[in-house]
Amino acid sequence: MTPDTQLCDIGFIGLGVMGKNLTLNLADNGYRIACFDLDQSKVDAILAQDRQEAGSEEVRIHGCRSYTELLAKLKKPHLVILSVPAGEPVDHVCNHLIDAGIGADDIVVDTGNSLWTDSVAREAHYKGKFIFFSTAVSGGEVGARFGPSLMPSGDPYAWTRIKPVWEAIAAKVDADSGKPIESHVPGKPVREGEPCATYIGPVGAGHYVKMVHNGIEYADMQLICEAYHIMRAGLGMQPAEIAETFRQWNQGVLNSYLIEISAEVLDKLDEETGQPLVDLILDRAGQKGTGLWTAVSALQVGSPAQTITQAVFARSISSLKAERLVAADALSGPEAPVLSGQEKDQAVQNLHDALYCSKICAYAQGFQLMAMASKEQGWKLDFAQIAKIWRAGCIIRAVFLQSITQAYEQNDSLANLLLDPFFASQIKSFQGNWRKAVADATLMGIPCAAMSSALNYYDSYRCAVLPANLLQGQRDYFGAHTFERTDKSPGRKFHIEWSQPGQPQVAIKK
Amino acid sequence: MTPDTQLCDIGFIGLGVMGKNLTLNLADNGYRIACFDLDQSKVDAILAQDRQEAGSEEVRIHGCRSYTELLAKLKKPHLVILSVPAGEPVDHVCNHLIDAGIGADDIVVDTGNSLWTDSVAREAHYKGKFIFFSTAVSGGEVGARFGPSLMPSGDPYAWTRIKPVWEAIAAKVDADSGKPIESHVPGKPVREGEPCATYIGPVGAGHYVKMVHNGIEYADMQLICEAYHIMRAGLGMQPAEIAETFRQWNQGVLNSYLIEISAEVLDKLDEETGQPLVDLILDRAGQKGTGLWTAVSALQVGSPAQTITQAVFARSISSLKAERLVAADALSGPEAPVLSGQEKDQAVQNLHDALYCSKICAYAQGFQLMAMASKEQGWKLDFAQIAKIWRAGCIIRAVFLQSITQAYEQNDSLANLLLDPFFASQIKSFQGNWRKAVADATLMGIPCAAMSSALNYYDSYRCAVLPANLLQGQRDYFGAHTFERTDKSPGRKFHIEWSQPGQPQVAIKK
Repeated sequence: MTPDTQLCDIGFIGLGVMGKNLTLNLADNGYRIACFDLDQSKVDAILAQDRQEAGSEEVRIHGCRSYTELLAKLKKPHLVILSVPAGEPVDHVCNHLIDAGIGADDIVVDTGNSLWTDSVAREAHYKGKFIFFSTAVSGGEVGARFGPSLMPSGDPYAWTRIKPVWEAIAAKVDADSGKPIESHVPGKPVREGEPCATYIGPVGAGHYVKMVHNGIEYADMQLICEAYHIMRAGLGMQPAEIAETFRQWNQGVLNSYLIEISAEVLDKLDEETGQPLVDLILDRAGQKGTGLWTAVSALQVGSPAQTITQAVFARSISSLKAERLVAADALSGPEAPVLSGQEKDQAVQNLHDALYCSKICAYAQGFQLMAMASKEQGWKLDFAQIAKIWRAGCIIRAVFLQSITQAYEQNDSLANLLLDPFFASQIKSFQGNWRKAVADATLMGIPCAAMSSALNYYDSYRCAVLPANLLQGQRDYFGAHTFERTDKSPGRKFHIEWSQPGQPQVAIKK
Repeated sequence: MTPDTQLCDIGFIGLGVMGKNLTLNLADNGYRIACFDLDQSKVDAILAQDRQEAGSEEVRIHGCRSYTELLAKLKKPHLVILSVPAGEPVDHVCNHLIDAGIGADDIVVDTGNSLWTDSVAREAHYKGKFIFFSTAVSGGEVGARFGPSLMPSGDPYAWTRIKPVWEAIAAKVDADSGKPIESHVPGKPVREGEPCATYIGPVGAGHYVKMVHNGIEYADMQLICEAYHIMRAGLGMQPAEIAETFRQWNQGVLNSYLIEISAEVLDKLDEETGQPLVDLILDRAGQKGTGLWTAVSALQVGSPAQTITQAVFARSISSLKAERLVAADALSGPEAPVLSGQEKDQAVQNLHDALYCSKICAYAQGFQLMAMASKEQGWKLDFAQIAKIWRAGCIIRAVFLQSITQAYEQNDSLANLLLDPFFASQIKSFQGNWRKAVADATLMGIPCAAMSSALNYYDSYRCAVLPANLLQGQRDYFGAHTFERTDKSPGRKFHIEWSQPGQPQVAIKK
């Protein structure tokens, strides 16, 4: 038997792009790893890469040929991390670990893109065999390698063991500025700063929060695309000019990873033709499902995440390319106006403000959804902490998340981000231009579905009396669904026979 | 044993409001009914009502005290219709019918608000025990009593038996005008005209179509509410003036049941205070779930039913009344402008046109969703027939559905209702005012989420190049999700290393 000092700290199963990079990140942070993949060539590849990166002085990563060998190489109680495709493969590995002799005190951490309800079911299912723990990972392959944002959830005892590991490998934020601390040099992990890893809550909560993160990401991307579209099709700007505009925007309140990379995408020239590459990319968006899951959850929970949902539908409509080409010929629209230079400058400023205000609303929707789900599930989510770990490592990282952190630090029971004094004042200042941008696009015939859904969210949320009074009248008329009255006690239900004039209202019990 | 001539034609189980009215409707149409309800007082009540309505000359409805007695009273093969709450109660009754000796050739028809996938599962589950058939019913209690719209689906042999029954009791339409034939005199069923009952397809298809009907109904209602809201809050009109406007609109292209009843709701005065009752109804909308189901299905199928979905979210946001009252104080908006009389007249005309164009888009979304689901499920839905049976009996009945019928009769493979020459020309004529109505509401700060989502649907659908090219660039940048190129063969995937200038594009296989 290997002497105890030689045993590995962590077992890692699944060495795809994410798994490999997480393993190297763990090794950089001083952990000894035993790793396994059904594809032995992936094991060989990471061992080779490790020897190259670490030099000859030490072996940090150890390859295994079976689940049994992996467990035998680990310290007790075992800590095993999985990075395998969501769904059946997770259970496949869990069952093999049981066969290989994993014990009740051992911990298995799923870092895949699992649906949150699957994580809840797995914790219950594997109870007594081992402790199933879940951690959602954001940041793509680069994040996994040099510092992701981590959303762990599950058994609190397991968390005490996992905490130092996740805090070591996570992205780090400068506590004062709230900005990411960059270090993309392999083998030199960032040790100082606030780690983007915090305990989210009971199992499943982490994956739920990550799902909403992705829903917000959908909205963020769609809003940027709409601003680009209006500049390109409405204001006649070329990709390079729009890239320059985005770079300017990236110096201010919109500073974010997504604005930064949008500028880079727009600047890229195609080597073959010399044209802006963006003009050659087919406008048919793919999706992996997490945006859709967020929208479905919002509908089920009854949380009006309409900008996030609209971003999902925008991808659906983009995929109908052949139909759209037919429709473009068959369906008429208004003529695009010719603008003076000054008008164009103002229109660009309007778009900046529209993007900013819409973004505030999209985030407000995401946090509102998490709050409603948290209440329903009894999770007690800490929104200041969630905003904190999104400040670096993940796709939606932005200075903006420092303001959200502060909003929830100042008021941890804030009902809606829009009610935070800072954000309320920001929208107050910028809403005039936001409205002009949406109205202009509406009149020009350029779609801005996400921006206008955000504005409608704002105007609906701040509306003391919505027209749902008429709607309740309609429902009672045709379906006897009853209504409440503003001048009677809450909860008391009324129904009247609408089609018989003078018929008295009848208070009925439901 | 009862002589065969005395046996009943149909067994009816479940005598709630819908079940009782369907039973009376069947009796009016000459069918002898044996009925049963777990609540014996409901059996007694319908027998009493039958004696009163039919006079003493004949007994049309026969009460039963058990499932066994019900089957014994029926002709063979048995035809049993259920009107029980969706979910477990349907299976409860089915299992009791098996215990009572129902046979493999007997037919059980579920007319409840079942989720369509439950119907699919039930047909398979009860195969060999009896033939499970489903029929979705629209029209509320009045429709059930005097002529509903019926959406039957399931075994084609069973349909040959059920067809004359459903065609007898369904609402009827005048073939020339496409308008409902009215006869609200009990005991005098409408026999002439085209019946609002047509075979929809394999089991589940009928309930799916009814679900989408309800999704469209949500959108229809929300669009009317937004027009009302802008008139009330933006143009300062009183309920009676808006009611009068709706009555005028009801003479033209917007003629529909929902516009008609909206005018009646707005005209109603509260007996206690003398105020318009609508001003006293609490603006918090309820929902029963079918709109939500439609939105979830649209997301899952990838069909951009954004106006329907927006209508669901509008109900969610309305239910946050306490938060909205806080937000109304805390969040600022623009001042509402003061309009001249002429401006107001034009604004009302704009709203009319906006409501009409938005309605076309909401229906286009509903039919697009059914088309995509039909393709996915292999149902081969006949959209001309579906539009036909919605012309009367159901909540969304409108002259408008005659135009939809004609659109699909002229082209049964129409990709989208917007591409029908009539609807394309209608939007061409009215879109200027539609855009003005949405832009004005945007600038005034009055929400019009459904109207603007409809306009964005139109502008996205007719857009040859959407900004999803930038979005695919972003996705490839951070997640290596690849993109296609407009100048290369379809399906060929490209990926580049965006952050390294001059890096060649790599075509990769997926």
